[in-house]
Amino acid sequence: MKLSEGVEAAIHCAATLAGVEGGATMPGAALAEQFGLSGSYLLKHLQALTAAGILESVPGPAGGYRLARAPDRISLLDIVLAVEGPQPAFRCGEIRRNGPVKLPTDAYVKPCGIKVAMLRAERAYRAALAEEKLSDIVADFMSDADPRSVAAACAFAERHQRPQKSSSPKQ
Amino acid sequence: MKLSEGVEAAIHCAATLAGVEGGATMPGAALAEQFGLSGSYLLKHLQALTAAGILESVPGPAGGYRLARAPDRISLLDIVLAVEGPQPAFRCGEIRRNGPVKLPTDAYVKPCGIKVAMLRAERAYRAALAEEKLSDIVADFMSDADPRSVAAACAFAERHQRPQKSSSPKQ
Repeated sequence: MKLSEGVEAAIHCAATLAGVEGGATMPGAALAEQFGLSGSYLLKHLQALTAAGILESVPGPAGGYRLARAPDRISLLDIVLAVEGPQPAFRCGEIRRNGPVKLPTDAYVKPCGIKVAMLRAERAYRAALAEEKLSDIVADFMSDADPRSVAAACAFAERHQRPQKSSSPKQ
Repeated sequence: MKLSEGVEAAIHCAATLAGVEGGATMPGAALAEQFGLSGSYLLKHLQALTAAGILESVPGPAGGYRLARAPDRISLLDIVLAVEGPQPAFRCGEIRRNGPVKLPTDAYVKPCGIKVAMLRAERAYRAALAEEKLSDIVADFMSDADPRSVAAACAFAERHQRPQKSSSPKQ
């Protein structure tokens, strides 16, 4: 079972944007630089986060991305679903119907017990991801990470954040 | 996030083998027929289940597959890991290290908080999958599925199972 690599990038970007001040934004190119990623690769994930209402994109030469809501209202589940899509991880092809004995459709009204059990476990996964808030990720980083990493992250945010004027369409 | 399609096939095959009697086996070709799958496609997953100690393969023209242990000692987690491999779903590329500020390696001794949180949620998923036993899947099928499906599955097992003589190397 595999999550796409974009999940790591998306969570790191959201955590970075949680560190910019007020309504400031950060350009996608800076986020890509921060994690050594290509801008075009990251753009896809930033757009997915924006489409999901996790980020806001402020257009224009002084624009960029910012969180669309407070980090305590953004969970890792929100980010995973934005990147991966809402479909369950378990793929049910209803192969139970494919055998040599063809039963009428109404023999399959009840869902397959294997699918039911797999989705039950998946709900536990999603519930656990929903408990993990971006605000906690950021708070733990600030208090627990190596002080050099914290200082570098703060300096990076300071250098690349773009305060938005009141004339900004998003303000 | 996606599990491979083989997970559905592998669980169905294990559940089918839970229905054969005593030490009898069922050939891979019959399992493939039961779910409308190609034999070569299914073989890969049957071999993975065998390598993981979930199935036993009895060689020879009258051979086939059978469960290697009782179905109450086989969980959906066992089957998922056999098919998908043991790696976590979350892929951490340590992109936190890739930024423009190069810190010494000892700044990254503590694991990344994002990885820690993602793996914490994944442990909840695995624990939930481990709670789902093959024996319960089969018992629920026998008691809850449409009686026509149950009758067809039992007739199929009856027709394709191969009792193993005491001279079988696996007996």
